This record gives sequence, C-alpha cells and structure tokens, in this order.
Amino acid sequence: MGCVWLKPLRAASSDSDLVLDSASRHSTLQFQPLQSSIDGSFWAKLGNLKLDNLRLSEDPQQITGFSSAANHADIPGSLLVDDRSFETPAPARQKLHGVPGELRNVNTLERFKALHPLERRRALIQESADRIWRDIRSGAAEADPALLSRFLLISYADLKLFRFYYWFAFPAIKPPQPVMVRSVQPMQQALGEDLSKGVAESCNQWLSSGGGRPLFWLLRIAEDNSVESVPLSSWQEAASSGERVVLAYADHSNLQSNPGWLLRNTLLMSAARWRVPDLEVACLRLRRGLVDTAASLLLSVSLPHIPEGWGEAETPAAFGWELNSRNKTGHREVDLGESMDPKQLASAAVDLNLRLMRWRAAPALDTARLAATKCLLLGAGTLGCAVARVLLGWGVRHVTFLDSGRVAFSNPVRQSLYEFDDCLKGGKPKATAAAAALQRIFPDVESTGVQLCIPMPGHPLSEGEVEKAKHDVKQLEALVDAHDVIFLLMDTRESRWLPTLLGAAKNKLVINAALGFESFLVMRHGAAPGGDDAPASSSTINCKGARLGCYFCNDVVAPLDSTVDRTLEQQCTVARPGLAGIAGSLAVEMCCGVIQHPQGVRAPAACHDPDASSSSADSALPLGPVPHMIRGQLGGGFAQLCLVGQAFRQCIACSNAVVTQYREKGWPFILQALQDPHALEDLTGLTELHSSADALAMMDSDEEEESEEGLLAAPDQASSAEQGDVKDDWLEL
Amino acid sequence: MGCVWLKPLRAASSDSDLVLDSASRHSTLQFQPLQSSIDGSFWAKLGNLKLDNLRLSEDPQQITGFSSAANHADIPGSLLVDDRSFETPAPARQKLHGVPGELRNVNTLERFKALHPLERRRALIQESADRIWRDIRSGAAEADPALLSRFLLISYADLKLFRFYYWFAFPAIKPPQPVMVRSVQPMQQALGEDLSKGVAESCNQWLSSGGGRPLFWLLRIAEDNSVESVPLSSWQEAASSGERVVLAYADHSNLQSNPGWLLRNTLLMSAARWRVPDLEVACLRLRRGLVDTAASLLLSVSLPHIPEGWGEAETPAAFGWELNSRNKTGHREVDLGESMDPKQLASAAVDLNLRLMRWRAAPALDTARLAATKCLLLGAGTLGCAVARVLLGWGVRHVTFLDSGRVAFSNPVRQSLYEFDDCLKGGKPKATAAAAALQRIFPDVESTGVQLCIPMPGHPLSEGEVEKAKHDVKQLEALVDAHDVIFLLMDTRESRWLPTLLGAAKNKLVINAALGFESFLVMRHGAAPGGDDAPASSSTINCKGARLGCYFCNDVVAPLDSTVDRTLEQQCTVARPGLAGIAGSLAVEMCCGVIQHPQGVRAPAACHDPDASSSSADSALPLGPVPHMIRGQLGGGFAQLCLVGQAFRQCIACSNAVVTQYREKGWPFILQALQDPHALEDLTGLTELHSSADALAMMDSDEEEESEEGLLAAPDQASSAEQGDVKDDWLEL
Repeated sequence: MGCVWLKPLRAASSDSDLVLDSASRHSTLQFQPLQSSIDGSFWAKLGNLKLDNLRLSEDPQQITGFSSAANHADIPGSLLVDDRSFETPAPARQKLHGVPGELRNVNTLERFKALHPLERRRALIQESADRIWRDIRSGAAEADPALLSRFLLISYADLKLFRFYYWFAFPAIKPPQPVMVRSVQPMQQALGEDLSKGVAESCNQWLSSGGGRPLFWLLRIAEDNSVESVPLSSWQEAASSGERVVLAYADHSNLQSNPGWLLRNTLLMSAARWRVPDLEVACLRLRRGLVDTAASLLLSVSLPHIPEGWGEAETPAAFGWELNSRNKTGHREVDLGESMDPKQLASAAVDLNLRLMRWRAAPALDTARLAATKCLLLGAGTLGCAVARVLLGWGVRHVTFLDSGRVAFSNPVRQSLYEFDDCLKGGKPKATAAAAALQRIFPDVESTGVQLCIPMPGHPLSEGEVEKAKHDVKQLEALVDAHDVIFLLMDTRESRWLPTLLGAAKNKLVINAALGFESFLVMRHGAAPGGDDAPASSSTINCKGARLGCYFCNDVVAPLDSTVDRTLEQQCTVARPGLAGIAGSLAVEMCCGVIQHPQGVRAPAACHDPDASSSSADSALPLGPVPHMIRGQLGGGFAQLCLVGQAFRQCIACSNAVVTQYREKGWPFILQALQDPHALEDLTGLTELHSSADALAMMDSDEEEESEEGLLAAPDQASSAEQGDVKDDWLEL
Repeated sequence: MGCVWLKPLRAASSDSDLVLDSASRHSTLQFQPLQSSIDGSFWAKLGNLKLDNLRLSEDPQQITGFSSAANHADIPGSLLVDDRSFETPAPARQKLHGVPGELRNVNTLERFKALHPLERRRALIQESADRIWRDIRSGAAEADPALLSRFLLISYADLKLFRFYYWFAFPAIKPPQPVMVRSVQPMQQALGEDLSKGVAESCNQWLSSGGGRPLFWLLRIAEDNSVESVPLSSWQEAASSGERVVLAYADHSNLQSNPGWLLRNTLLMSAARWRVPDLEVACLRLRRGLVDTAASLLLSVSLPHIPEGWGEAETPAAFGWELNSRNKTGHREVDLGESMDPKQLASAAVDLNLRLMRWRAAPALDTARLAATKCLLLGAGTLGCAVARVLLGWGVRHVTFLDSGRVAFSNPVRQSLYEFDDCLKGGKPKATAAAAALQRIFPDVESTGVQLCIPMPGHPLSEGEVEKAKHDVKQLEALVDAHDVIFLLMDTRESRWLPTLLGAAKNKLVINAALGFESFLVMRHGAAPGGDDAPASSSTINCKGARLGCYFCNDVVAPLDSTVDRTLEQQCTVARPGLAGIAGSLAVEMCCGVIQHPQGVRAPAACHDPDASSSSADSALPLGPVPHMIRGQLGGGFAQLCLVGQAFRQCIACSNAVVTQYREKGWPFILQALQDPHALEDLTGLTELHSSADALAMMDSDEEEESEEGLLAAPDQASSAEQGDVKDDWLEL
C-alpha cells in the first residue's frame, strides 16, 4: 500500500525496519499520497443532477469529500466522495471529516481531455491553492481546518454508457523550504504507555463526539499528563499556556514513518500563522474505529521559516494531481455499466434519453408525468403495435392491450410487436403476445394483454350473448377507469362507439387513429361534456373555447355492423404499409403533447390562425400546442393538414344526453344501444333531424363514402379529406 | 364406398352378393354418385387468379373437370379439379376425361351462403341443365360428349386464412320415366371370355390413344366379334349397319350393379336423340390403368320413351348437388392453412395483402417489382429499423443493413428491431442483430448485416487507417452496386457524403432521412448527373425537368467532422420518439412511389402547382406522384410541407465534376476527399465561390444553424424549415 506519489518515497516501500528514528531524522518529510475513493452513488447522483439541473452547464459545483484516518495496517484512509457529497450543508458523519471540494464536470470527453495538458492542470490546481493560501493568511483555515484540505475533481460523465472519467487534485502549497523530520516514532513509544493512552482517549472523544469534527485539532497536554482536545483556533491560548501543544491529525497514511498528504498545508499554516520553528504532530491511526497508540505516530518536525511577505504577491506553487491506477500521470475511468444489473441499465438508459430532451430542446418537459401515464390500447394491430412502441420511446411504463384476435401470418411484417413464431399453431392471442413483446423490449414496462371483443352497436346479441356482453362491458369500464389515456386503434367504426362514450363519461383522454388505403385520421376527443357543446345548427366555430368533438361528432347516423359481407381486401384492411407508422407516431405525439399541457384533456386545439397562434402561452408548452385532428394522405403529394371541430350537441357517443343516460342507467342503457342503435338516434334527437330533407341528403353522401372507404376503418372525414372537400362543421386550419 | 346419394341405393351398400341378374332385373336403374376431388393446386391457382385478374369480379369462370374411371375395387373414380382446370383449351390428359364446368367464386362468405337456399340452388343447377338439354337436342353433345357431364362449382376462397368453401353440382336431367334395368352382369360373364377380351382391347386403345378422349363412345361389335371403338357421333352409321352397338362409358362407379352418375344424361340423350327403347352399356372400370373385364359391367337398360316436344317449352327438372362429407346437404370446406408449411403460409399471407391493394385501391401496382427491389440501409438505428419494417410491409424481400455500432440499452425502446437481450454483454452488433430480427419477423426475407463504418470527409486517417478505409470503401462500392435503393439513415451529416456520391455515380435511387429534435427531412436524390444541373446562379426553378438535388446540394461547405466534442444529448441524437416512425415511413413510401414510377430515379417531383399537378399522367401512377423532399415538424402544430430543389452544379457530392473525378480516379480521389475536404471545394469551384462576400454570408448563417441543430443530425434545411424560412434555392410547394 505504501505507494509512491509525486515525490518518490523510496525508503517507505521497504519499511519493515522498525528503527525509524535514525533512518528518518533530519531528512525531508515525505507524505503518503491521498487516495481518492468514488462511490457509485456519487455518479448516480451526478447523473441525476446533470440531467435535471445542470444540463449543459459546466459551472463548478461545490461538493464535500470525506477524509478518513487509516483503520487497518495495510489499508490507508482515503478521500471518499459519494451521493452525500452533494448535500448542503455538508453532512456530519462519524469518523469522516468533511472537506470542501470543487467539481468541474464538463459536457464532452474532448473538453475533459482538453483539461489534461500540464499547463491547464497547473492553472486549475493553482486556483484552489489560491483559496487555501488566502484562507491560511486570513485565519479562516484556523477557524475551519477543512479549508486546508480543499480538493478539486474534474470529470466527464458519459451517462449513455455509464462510463465516468475523472481526475482528483489534492492541492498542496509548496513551502519556501521543505519540512524536516526531527523524529518519528510510534506514539506509544514516543509518549510512553500512560500518556499515549490519555492522548488516545481524548482523541477518541474528539472523533466520536457528534461526528464531522475537523481532521486537525490540538492536544493540550498539561504537566500532570492530562490531555485535552481543542480546536486549532485555540492555538494562541494553548501556546501561551506553557502546556505541551501537539497538532492532532486523523491521518489517512498507514505508513510507519510518513504522515498523509493532507498534513502538508496544515504544516505550512503552522509555519506561516503560528511562526513556530518546531512542531509535534500526533498522526492518529485507528483500529476498529479507535485510536491505536502503536499504529499512530508522534512526529516531530522542523518547520520552514516563512519570510515576511512571502506569497503575498502571488500564491506559492501548488501540486497534487492524483496518479491513475497504474501510478502514471493521467485520469481515471470507471465503467459502472459493467457492474450494473442490465435491467437497471436499460431503465436508466431509457430515462436518460428523455431527460436529455430537457437540456436544450424541451426544458419544461415533465418526464415523470409521462412515465406515470397509464395507457389503454384498444386494438393490437398495425396501429396498436406502432403506438405502443412510440409510448415506450416516451418512457411510458404502463401499457395495456385489448384485442380479441390472434396473430395471423400476414401480421408480423406490418404489426411491429409480432414475429413469425407468434403465428404458429393458430396464432397467439394478440393482446398477450403484444404485452409479452413489450417486456422483451423493455423489462421495466408493466404491460398486460386483455383478450376481449368490444361490444358494438348494430351487432345484435343472442340471449346467450347478453351475459357475456355485460361482463365485457364491465371489464372495459374497469379498464377505462384504471387508465389515463384510451387509444382507439381498431379497424371498425362501430367498435369505437362504446370506448368513445366511456372516455367521455369518465373524462379520459381519448386518442383515435384510423387508416384508409392511403389516408389517415388522428384525433383526440374532447373532455367530458358539460353543456358547452356546439348547438346542432352552429355555423361558426373558433378553435379555442368550445369543447372539441369526438370521432362520431360529425355523424348523423348511429354505427351499424360493418363487418358483415366484407370482401377480402376489406377484411385485411388494406393500407399502404407506411400509414400505420405515421398515424401511430402522430397519435402518441398528440397524446404526449396533451399530457404535457397544463389543461390536459381540455387543452385547446393548436390553431394556425396567425393572430391567435403564437401566443406566449403556447410557446411555454413543453411540446408545443396540440392539434385536434390531423388528416394526411400519401397519394397525390403527401399532404397533411390539421383540423378542428367542436363537439356536436346531438352526437351519439359524447353528447351530454348520451353521457347522462349512461351515467344514470349504466348497463341497461348500453344494452339497448347495442341491440338497437336507432335508440341512440332517438335519444339525441337525430331521428328528428333525419326527417328533414337536409339531413337525409347528408346521410346519403355519408353512406356513399362509407361503402367505398369507410369499411376500411377510414372514417368518412378521412375519405372526404382525400377528395379535398372538408365538411362544413370541421374547421380547416 | 357405395355411399348413398340423393336417391338412396339401399341394396348397393351390402353388395357382397354376386348374383346380380335376378336382383336388379326390371328395377329402376340407380347410379353411384360422383365424388368431387379438389387438389390444393386448384385453390392456389384460384387464389392467384383472384388476386391478379378477377379481383372483385364474380363473373362465372369456365373451368375443366377431369373425370376418371374407377381403377380399384374399393375406390370409385372421381371428378378432379386442379390447377390445370384453368387452362384453355382444356388439356388432354391420359385416363382423364375433361368435362366443362363453371366456377362461381364469390367475394364473401355471406354471399356464398346466400347461394345455399334450395330455390337458389335449383335455379343455379337449372342453368347448367338448360345448356346440357340444349346441347342434347342440338346434337352438340353427340359431337362432344363432355358437354353431357357439364358441372357447376360455387365457392368462396378465404385467401387470408387459406380456408375454402365450395359446393359441386353434377346436373342430371330427370327423364319423363326412370331408366329400367334389364340386366346387369360383369362384362366377362355377359360377353364371354373372348368377346370381352376384344372389347377390353378396343377400349384400352381408345382410352390410351392421345389422351383426353371423351368418357362416352360407341363399341361396334361385328358378327365375327371384332370390336371397334367409334365416337358417339357415329351412332346413325353404326346403328344402321346392323352391327351390335354398345355404349361405352369410362365409369367412375365401383359398384357391382350400378353405373356412375354421369351416365344419366347420356342415357337421356340416347332416348331423346336415338329414340331406341333398349341400350347396352359397357361400364368400363380399370385395374392398373387397363380395362378389367371382370370389374366392368355390361348393363342392359330399357330407356324411357321421350314424347315428341317433351322438354321443349322448358327444360325438364335437374338435380345433382353433391352432399357434404357427412352425407348431408351442405357445402364442403377445406382448410389448407393447417397443412401448409408455416413459412409458405407467411409468405403467401404477406403477398396477399399487397396484391389485395390492386383490387380497388391501386390496380396498377406492380408488387413483383417491389418484391425484387434490393435495399441497402446505411444505419440501423431508429430510422434504419423503422425503414426496414415498412419495407417488409411493402413486400421487399432483400434488405441489407450497414452499421458499425452495437445495441445499447437505450436502443430497444426506440429502435424497433432490437430487444433487451440484444443489449447484454456489451450489445450485439446492430447490423447483424437487425438482419436477424427481420428473419424472425418474416423467414422469407433475405437480410444481411454488414458491420462497417462509412469513411467520412473531415475525419483524417492515420497511416494505418488508410488501408482499412480503402477496404471499407471497396466494400461499400460493392454493396451499392448490388442494391437498387440506398437509404441514408445515419446520424451525422458527413457520413452521408460518400454514399451520396456513390449513389449519384451509379445512378441508384438514394433516399435520405434525417431527424432533428422535433423536425425531420425526408428526400430522394436526383439521378446520375448528366450536365442538366442548375447553374450556380440559377434563380428560377420549375419542379419538372431539371435533375433533382441531393442532400448536399444547398451546401457551400464540404462536410467536416461533427462527432468530435458532442455533448451527451447530441450523442444520443435526442429526438421526439414519434419522429422516426413518421420519417421512416415517409422514406419508404417515397421509395415505393419512385419504384412504381415509370421514370424511376428520374421521376419528376410531385408538384402542387394546381395547373400542372392533376395531369392524367400523374393519376395513372400506381402510388401517385412522389415529392422531392418532405419536411415536417411536431412542435407548433404538426405541419408538413413538400419542397423541391434542383441539383446544384457545384455540389460537393453529386455534381458532374465530383462524379466524373470519382469515376475516373476511384479510390485516390476518395482518399483525397477524406483527408482534405477542402479539395472538394476546390474541385467544384466552391472555394472561388467562398471568396465572394455573398457566399461568406451564407456560410455564416449555415454554421450558426449547425451548431444548434445540425449536430443532432438535422440538416440545416430541416432546422430552417422549423424557423419557417426556406432557402431561396429550394422551391416551396
């Protein structure tokens, strides 16, 4: 352990010789280097600090190191930094002596390496030395001896690979002449059995009382050999008392003839402030936490004479950069990635990417809020898989899939959570296969699969099916209750009705995505109805204010069974393969934008109105304003446009009339709607509306589109977007 | 085997009794039902026909069935349909007698089931019976006896699940009275050893000569017992010759006292056309492919009298729907999915989805061309993974990944081809892990991973690295040669230079995608330069005509090393997680659009100019016109816009000057560019350009953007899109 550092200490490396007196007398005092010890918790804490607070800042951070006396014959003490190093005020810890340090963590490995050249390091250590010298001269160091052991830590934290690069400096100011050894002996031998015992007792008391005591203090030894520990600031009083005054030092060195490095500045202070030619130092080493008089040294030194005015113009030179683990000049590295649990590593790595967004791009982003969001994905097909993947990317850790299907052979190439093996033996249930895939991707995710077919209006139930439907509805209600966001990612129009109603009734964020052959619609539903719906005849719409519409808000007919009599390409929901990736991604981005919006589900639609849009409120949103609907298409030029539409007072899914009925009656109301969708039309007054000629004309045009495109799960609004004609009641932005 | 069909044939089910004469004499003649036999190849062929030609059409298809005589004591013959049933003209096959059939394949299971009610089936079979009766009366059936065995097949092919629903009808016209049995005996017994041998010889000759002979013909037995086989059309001549004339019939029945079903219409014809009261019929059965005189029957029947004018006003009733496998009225089903190799199933299923697009959405889509396209993906990160998945969806079966990295813990949640396990033990190489993932998804894909770091200008090479770089460049050149499309999906600007040059020099389709924090750019590069570049000072651009620009075409500086000194969030290329899905999908859709464009890599940019855009040429494109560049962003309202820009005459990557140098000098030229990017500027005249004040002003603004956003792999054009200011030399559409 007697490693040689900076100033080689040749004798010490073979110090089996106990006759130290003659060997060391009148020679230059040499010191055992101080070893740094960085706990993993230090880097973890720094990582968090960097990601959450420092970000791109490279400002020096004040930290606390903890020096300890040697506690074992073969092991020197060290300077520890750990997670508590970042606490302010510095914590008081038993047998650990806090000393102030400065952390300079830089942003890139290149910048770290740029600190390496000798000149650069000299300049850095000199800065610390300046402060030490100033504190010595001002007396501040006498009042707080920790200031004498001020240290410096430069680092670069590669939080992506959990690899850390660092270099400690323990600045020691070079005195005008070296300190000379007068004698060095085991304390027991130098002071005799009794006195050394008294010294040990006093020191133990000092060290254990309250914790966090300075590593330097004074021992006043009276004529009756009684010993008292007093702070350094008592020097004048003690020295003038005529008592024997010994500098006590919780020594990290475990060498038999050399004290530790930290004594250097204190000796300089003794020479400069107290101006004594000689000094006795008790270098205290411990065994099992208590001072050991045989292992401790009594060192007697000749201090250099410090001339008047020395070091006034400029600070004397300082040195003290720690050697690396191969005893060479150079930084140290630690690869925590190797020792971490891989699952922890993955979790930390995923977290890292998100928190990094806050460095420059989205400083206000609340990643914890995203992580805590529970998402229910209705449908685990092309859209469901795409949505789940982007949710993982955003750090969402709670995803539930609901699907009644099994993985078919044509699925894996388009549905990104399935593989060929999932198709064998009739295919795994999609919901559970998707949930399992998420866990394979990211073990920390909580993912569940529920195999359930959503009851749909217009799919009449046989008597035997009613009980099952009741059970399914109950389960769906419980799932909606248990989640924050409901994604509608199914391939039929009518299966969206019940979840739309439940989302509105329970005021959940509902995100809806639907694909045509080369077009898509992604939208979010408005909040629970509260009488702020647009009247049936409303002709003016503004994008802020009124409640936003749902998927059914521009329908004037209740959904009917669209799955009967579908030709093959309708069953396969033929769509250009790129659509799901686009629509799924937009759906999640829309969802995250709303979650980050202070108004949540009531967030107004992003508005491209040049007068209204670039408000300062919008620009304060972490992810910007969020549109109500995005329609896009790939044919004819890859156009994409945002629309906004108010909630429709007579909507068969989200209107106050429907939601109120559901809240009051529950299952019987749902059952009625399932058995006879026209009951919904009666309830909302649509039946009445139909009897007017205008409404009938609208219906016809709706149905026409439906037969061509709607069965492919593209809502009529999407197909009308393709044709370039946007409905009157949706406002184009 | 003597299964009972329509008209129960009770005696036959226990026909161990060989004394047939007395048992059957003067009783009504009963027939063994005909069994259909559908080979899997029939459905495969139908599937292809449906997907490629019929699509949504339900028009009846003329097919050929192949009747065979019984060839084994326990096994009756059958009516086979297989892939050759679709050939025209009907193929001639040894021992198989082609008979015409009509296939009515409908588009949905519901429509198939709608054909089931008795009335509907009666109407269908009557249609066929009408034609048979017409052919009998006209003499057409005498000339071509196959017309007497006309059959009907209704079906629904669920090509998604490889499940097929079908129902055969073998129409038999009901005569005014039943045919009565006069005698029925084994032929050997009835004709004696010698004559039956002569009959067998003549029949064998008939059956084997040329193949495809009708299953009905005549035997003329002269007084000397010599036997001659002649066609049915020789009846008058044979009958008037005074010779013994026997109707010969390749009989599918294996019963000892009953002929097969197909004899019915021929007996009716005999009665109606030939007007004979009695007829002898040789019901020929085979053993090992030759007529067996012991197994064959000689049947003597009394034919009904057909009154003059009978069946003239309306066709007599007909019947003959085959029973299902449980001997009940009903359709049959076959589930080929169960017996197919799962990999074949997957391959067929994937193919299906694509071909279905042609039914309605994209009739001109050339799926084979997509399947044959070889794609090289440079970069297997978020974009590479997303692109590969959409390519699979489009049926692309040849994907090569190139990447030098390993899978890190933060990757799987954003890079959709990796899982947690890929990150362990330092991480698998991305390129090979991605290739393996594709195979897990779709075993039919040919995917390869190449671990290679693309040499980059501005990353100077040490002497030792030059050889490696040379080797890497050679490998990259070979890869570019071997592929049709090159995707640039890396995260640095400078790594795109070499592949851009190679793509231009080799006239490959290059698709480029790049992400910022919340913006993306997806573009395709123009074709190889041919002197049609825009001059440096060009101020007018039209979107058709001139060669399209590459990623570097609006740069006026050569790429430099941007990886040095990147802060953590720059290394992690922080981007909103939804971006990669959007940009990756658009990149592939753009790629497929170009592949489907008749001009390929020279396809003009989609142009939103209302006057020029909706040309008929554009509307004929299977996937519509393809933009040159798409820029989009997620912040501030999810806008997306298409841009077009001409190739720049002084471009450091795709200009004629650079491409020519590369073609002439090869590696030495590349090496020079890698070592000193400014050589490129000298070559293209950019150096000169820089010396003008204008150019310097442009550079400054470039660099400013670069430092903020460009290092995140977002090209300056993307960041300027975010700021809403589009460069002069890119035309906004």
